[in-house]
Amino acid sequence: MIEYNRYSWWKTAFSFRGTALPRAGWRVLTCVLYALLVQATFELGSDLQLYDEQRFLGIDPVGHAVVGSLLGFLIVFRMNSSNNRYWEGRSHWGQLINSSRNLVRFGCEYGERGSTLSRLVAGYVISLRRSLHGQRDTEEVDVYLPAELCEQVSRFGNIPTGVTSAISHWIGEQYRKGKLDSMQVRHMEDQLSKMVDAQGGCEKIQKTPLPFIYVAMIKQLILAYLITLPLVLCERCGWWSPVLMFVVSLALLGMEEASVEIEDPFGSDGNCLDLEALTLTIARDAGQLALFKPVFICDDQHD
Amino acid sequence: MIEYNRYSWWKTAFSFRGTALPRAGWRVLTCVLYALLVQATFELGSDLQLYDEQRFLGIDPVGHAVVGSLLGFLIVFRMNSSNNRYWEGRSHWGQLINSSRNLVRFGCEYGERGSTLSRLVAGYVISLRRSLHGQRDTEEVDVYLPAELCEQVSRFGNIPTGVTSAISHWIGEQYRKGKLDSMQVRHMEDQLSKMVDAQGGCEKIQKTPLPFIYVAMIKQLILAYLITLPLVLCERCGWWSPVLMFVVSLALLGMEEASVEIEDPFGSDGNCLDLEALTLTIARDAGQLALFKPVFICDDQHD
Amino acid sequence: MIEYNRYSWWKTAFSFRGTALPRAGWRVLTCVLYALLVQATFELGSDLQLYDEQRFLGIDPVGHAVVGSLLGFLIVFRMNSSNNRYWEGRSHWGQLINSSRNLVRFGCEYGERGSTLSRLVAGYVISLRRSLHGQRDTEEVDVYLPAELCEQVSRFGNIPTGVTSAISHWIGEQYRKGKLDSMQVRHMEDQLSKMVDAQGGCEKIQKTPLPFIYVAMIKQLILAYLITLPLVLCERCGWWSPVLMFVVSLALLGMEEASVEIEDPFGSDGNCLDLEALTLTIARDAGQLALFKPVFICDDQHD
Amino acid sequence: MIEYNRYSWWKTAFSFRGTALPRAGWRVLTCVLYALLVQATFELGSDLQLYDEQRFLGIDPVGHAVVGSLLGFLIVFRMNSSNNRYWEGRSHWGQLINSSRNLVRFGCEYGERGSTLSRLVAGYVISLRRSLHGQRDTEEVDVYLPAELCEQVSRFGNIPTGVTSAISHWIGEQYRKGKLDSMQVRHMEDQLSKMVDAQGGCEKIQKTPLPFIYVAMIKQLILAYLITLPLVLCERCGWWSPVLMFVVSLALLGMEEASVEIEDPFGSDGNCLDLEALTLTIARDAGQLALFKPVFICDDQHD
Amino acid sequence: MIEYNRYSWWKTAFSFRGTALPRAGWRVLTCVLYALLVQATFELGSDLQLYDEQRFLGIDPVGHAVVGSLLGFLIVFRMNSSNNRYWEGRSHWGQLINSSRNLVRFGCEYGERGSTLSRLVAGYVISLRRSLHGQRDTEEVDVYLPAELCEQVSRFGNIPTGVTSAISHWIGEQYRKGKLDSMQVRHMEDQLSKMVDAQGGCEKIQKTPLPFIYVAMIKQLILAYLITLPLVLCERCGWWSPVLMFVVSLALLGMEEASVEIEDPFGSDGNCLDLEALTLTIARDAGQLALFKPVFICDDQHD
Repeated sequence: MIEYNRYSWWKTAFSFRGTALPRAGWRVLTCVLYALLVQATFELGSDLQLYDEQRFLGIDPVGHAVVGSLLGFLIVFRMNSSNNRYWEGRSHWGQLINSSRNLVRFGCEYGERGSTLSRLVAGYVISLRRSLHGQRDTEEVDVYLPAELCEQVSRFGNIPTGVTSAISHWIGEQYRKGKLDSMQVRHMEDQLSKMVDAQGGCEKIQKTPLPFIYVAMIKQLILAYLITLPLVLCERCGWWSPVLMFVVSLALLGMEEASVEIEDPFGSDGNCLDLEALTLTIARDAGQLALFKPVFICDDQHD
Repeated sequence: MIEYNRYSWWKTAFSFRGTALPRAGWRVLTCVLYALLVQATFELGSDLQLYDEQRFLGIDPVGHAVVGSLLGFLIVFRMNSSNNRYWEGRSHWGQLINSSRNLVRFGCEYGERGSTLSRLVAGYVISLRRSLHGQRDTEEVDVYLPAELCEQVSRFGNIPTGVTSAISHWIGEQYRKGKLDSMQVRHMEDQLSKMVDAQGGCEKIQKTPLPFIYVAMIKQLILAYLITLPLVLCERCGWWSPVLMFVVSLALLGMEEASVEIEDPFGSDGNCLDLEALTLTIARDAGQLALFKPVFICDDQHD
Repeated sequence: MIEYNRYSWWKTAFSFRGTALPRAGWRVLTCVLYALLVQATFELGSDLQLYDEQRFLGIDPVGHAVVGSLLGFLIVFRMNSSNNRYWEGRSHWGQLINSSRNLVRFGCEYGERGSTLSRLVAGYVISLRRSLHGQRDTEEVDVYLPAELCEQVSRFGNIPTGVTSAISHWIGEQYRKGKLDSMQVRHMEDQLSKMVDAQGGCEKIQKTPLPFIYVAMIKQLILAYLITLPLVLCERCGWWSPVLMFVVSLALLGMEEASVEIEDPFGSDGNCLDLEALTLTIARDAGQLALFKPVFICDDQHD
Repeated sequence: MIEYNRYSWWKTAFSFRGTALPRAGWRVLTCVLYALLVQATFELGSDLQLYDEQRFLGIDPVGHAVVGSLLGFLIVFRMNSSNNRYWEGRSHWGQLINSSRNLVRFGCEYGERGSTLSRLVAGYVISLRRSLHGQRDTEEVDVYLPAELCEQVSRFGNIPTGVTSAISHWIGEQYRKGKLDSMQVRHMEDQLSKMVDAQGGCEKIQKTPLPFIYVAMIKQLILAYLITLPLVLCERCGWWSPVLMFVVSLALLGMEEASVEIEDPFGSDGNCLDLEALTLTIARDAGQLALFKPVFICDDQHD
Repeated sequence: MIEYNRYSWWKTAFSFRGTALPRAGWRVLTCVLYALLVQATFELGSDLQLYDEQRFLGIDPVGHAVVGSLLGFLIVFRMNSSNNRYWEGRSHWGQLINSSRNLVRFGCEYGERGSTLSRLVAGYVISLRRSLHGQRDTEEVDVYLPAELCEQVSRFGNIPTGVTSAISHWIGEQYRKGKLDSMQVRHMEDQLSKMVDAQGGCEKIQKTPLPFIYVAMIKQLILAYLITLPLVLCERCGWWSPVLMFVVSLALLGMEEASVEIEDPFGSDGNCLDLEALTLTIARDAGQLALFKPVFICDDQHD
């Protein structure tokens, strides 16, 4: 995630890193060169009077603008669905933060050995982060989990699922020792279920991109639009045509590239979510909740 | 589901399989031929001076563009609602994954014979997949369920509902044997209810298409727009008119076809959800959770 | 609900029944006749040289197109909100299906006389369907409910609410007989609450149309736009003007009519939800779940 | 809420009461007069040849139309968010209906003195309605609640909160008398919590309008657009310019006014929700549920 | 939050404070000056006949308008997502109000020392408000919480999390004293979990701005559009060009600035949520609920 000051207008407008320019730049350049080429051919042809300028005409700008405005809707539709995925991904991690706080707070109030629970929870979110980043091992996780457990969960097809099973086992142990009753078990399992739901939500976003047919059609339409654009402009704009081509292709290709980058919020691009910071928050809060023993002053004085 | 590299711009833009072209291609071709025909008639007429060109005029491009821009909104509305159905369908399957993990993990921690439960859950999702694909039998399901049960559930109007009844029976058995108390029964039934809700959600998407009146009106408007388009263009574009017709009809017909394909995410098209992979994930995780027996090192050393 | 093959493009595009044409057709015709009249007046005036054509000008097409594009947004807004209502209505019935399955399955596993429960549930959804269709009696319902109960519930202001009270009473009876414990009562009441929530959702959709002020403003704007349209076109399009009027009025009036028809998904139009089929599904599944007694092969052989 | 027949097209299109015209009418008139004035000045100037008509030009219509189309989006955005608030408000009242039915039905099945509960619930929704209408007293409420209680709750900063406390107390009494066990208390408190959530939702809508900055910017843009519009039109439309001004200002000002009226669904305008009818429904259903004693025929005959 | 009368049209339209003008004003001014400069250069050049006016042409207005309409969509997309964040933030605080009412009402009915609970809840929301405003201390909070507890929670990385732990401890104390049973503990912990979820939601909104890539691209496109706009207009509008520039730049820059201000609803701008008022409401209601002892008249008289 890129931190920025939301009020420094000019600095943001002139930034290059973190924008879509590094990736879409070459495509925009290609478009401008293509427009220059078409314009040069047109001017050459009209100088040599190869064709009657009255009869050249070119593509009707209003008809062409209908495609342009359809493309505008499509790109905003694309941006919007990428942004929803991003926000949904962030919300799932927000749910992980909330539920881990609830789980550890409750577990430490009623169970014993809360620090084991807090370590299990920290190990869970780290294993989930690594799993979302495509790493299938228990590195980093082994700081929080005992080696035997690491070894066991690493045999799971989905490692975080193995860790949830260990958390369930911790709860079950407390139940069998009589520290938690059946109702309290259920409360904790509910919080754990919410964490598993959030995990499933993250995996859904990561494994299910926007349908290929949409993505491909949008790219094909952008291509068809940009290829025909200089034919619309050559007669009307003269040598200003490549300038307009620059603005239009920057708009279409830049926005499309931005949507591609935001689509997977768990990737490694600069604009993706900072999962390291989120896991650290969870590990810190879980640890502090496990250690907390509130000392009330005698309440009677207050009533 | 079609896997693709989201960063290979040109490869995606030039792909043919998996896009709407194979289906909408013929319609686009028809449109281009129609535009050629109209243009040829117009040119012939103006060469023969059948009509005074000053008086021909044709349809006003700005008025016509209003219909074009309305069509643009309609098609994005259509794409958006198809995409929402797709994503809702995927979310229901995500819920099935999450709840099956929660159900099996809990069942194995507190009940006994967890492997039976994991087989029932695997059988349930397979029967649901087959039911969504329109197959009314217990093939594949019989790998996981005993033959008598298969025979019983195959008499149900809705086979997965029969399997949920068997899962409820498993929970009830554990309850009557005293392995689970009433609270734990309720927790498991809650998870099962979520799976039934997800099943109902999938059936809703499959059985309720977009209202016919919308679908028909959009197609009729596309038709009316494309039929009148060459009359708008013939005078202004000359022989460039079929080129513009190609771009416009590709945009409208292609996007509409893409929406039709995405509308039913449980179909057999290339762009539909890969239900086989999702059921395999559930079956694998359920099996691994049933076998897992976590061994903690003595926790005291850590505290 | 109108069944249709989503891949037969031409058949759908040329269908008449089930589209908005039967209702909006007359209005479209009126518009075309009006455009013909205006055009004839204009041509007559210019033939008689009643006005200097240089000075006639007419309404500016670009300024007028702004209103047209605003109307486009409004109509898509209207379509979208109608479609959301339709889908929300369908989702509430989906919830009724899911919760009735969960309720009957649980009730039959732990209670006794499950068949009474399944009849009460079937009676409930039928009375709800009749209530949504505006019928205030217990016809059809009396197939499933005993006559005394029918008589009692028919005195309720809201008949389905009376039936839910009877279902609650069934649960309470089982509780007092000791078949269900307090926890199981609560699980069943939770499912019943979900059904009542879905009922309330349906009644909300039926009784609260889109605010009158929106509906009236959209109709007034369509009228103002269509009345002024021929004044924009008469000079630019000549006798093509009624053709464009046909396309534009078909788009605006047709889409608006389609939205009106979809707005109430519980009506009796062809495009409304098929509540008969949905109630039949619930009655069938409830009956089959009540009769089901799963026979497991001895599980030990499998473990 | 204004009742209307959704199929009477012409009657709705020509209605005046309940539309935005009574309020926005003066503003539309002002705009038309302003356009007449500008046009007269322009015609006078060109008759006197104060300026070279070639050089007058006026504002470019295409550039101006971009602002117009942005305004179109903004107004649909505004309408949409007002409509969402309206629908959310209606949904909260739907939740009140559902939860009150669930609460009273359950309370009467398992507790005693259900009629007291039904009176408390009726008093609660009436006090909520009055509180949303800005009335800080217990009139009307005192029909359902005993005088002492009325006096007590009237000291609350938020009167409905006081009544919920009384409902909680009723539940607590039943618990202490042993009529309800702890689980049943929780079920009723859950339903009560949903009612409190719905109340909070209503208060949120009432007290948090659309941010001022949005509302002000939209009005300022409409103003800037309408002031410059005659400058765009004067040369192109001639004396048709005020006609177009009428249509455009009706569209912009009318839609904006409609959004303002819908924004607060709990107001006293004609288009607001009919809270009286909704509270009556709740009071009626609560009363009937409290009196209902279902008499089953002996079920054995049916099995 | 800025209070305003939603029916005073002119006052709102002419207000300056609270709108985007104070911030975006300079940028709009810069744009107008730039347009004046370009126009002057163009007029000078054409007076000196530096270029053949036939050949100057300038950028095609229709092609340029496509970028303008895309920008329109983008800005409405931006406004909409800012508004959703604002409303989601408000809804989380609404949830805090609802849950605190539910928690305190229940706690006072079944536990003892309700006033301690109400003070803890008040302290919690105040510490959350201060934490959202970036203040890491226990000022103001110490009015409600005992000094030792203040000291303890101030050591937490996230202070409100420390206070929730104290609330959990209060519940646990009541449980260990036998005032609350396990079911009632769970009900209160559920309400507390909802408050923690709301807290997490607020922190999510505060810490996760709109992705940088979107924000930067929108600003860059606005810049590219406004820089090229005078080149489109200079020939067509003459000296009216700066007037149109004023309207366009006001629309684009003003709306963008408004979105920036609304994006973080917990900031200190005039348009942000009034968290002080919301915390006061919670503290007041919690205090009044803790003191309330409803006295029923003997109910028998009413039945």
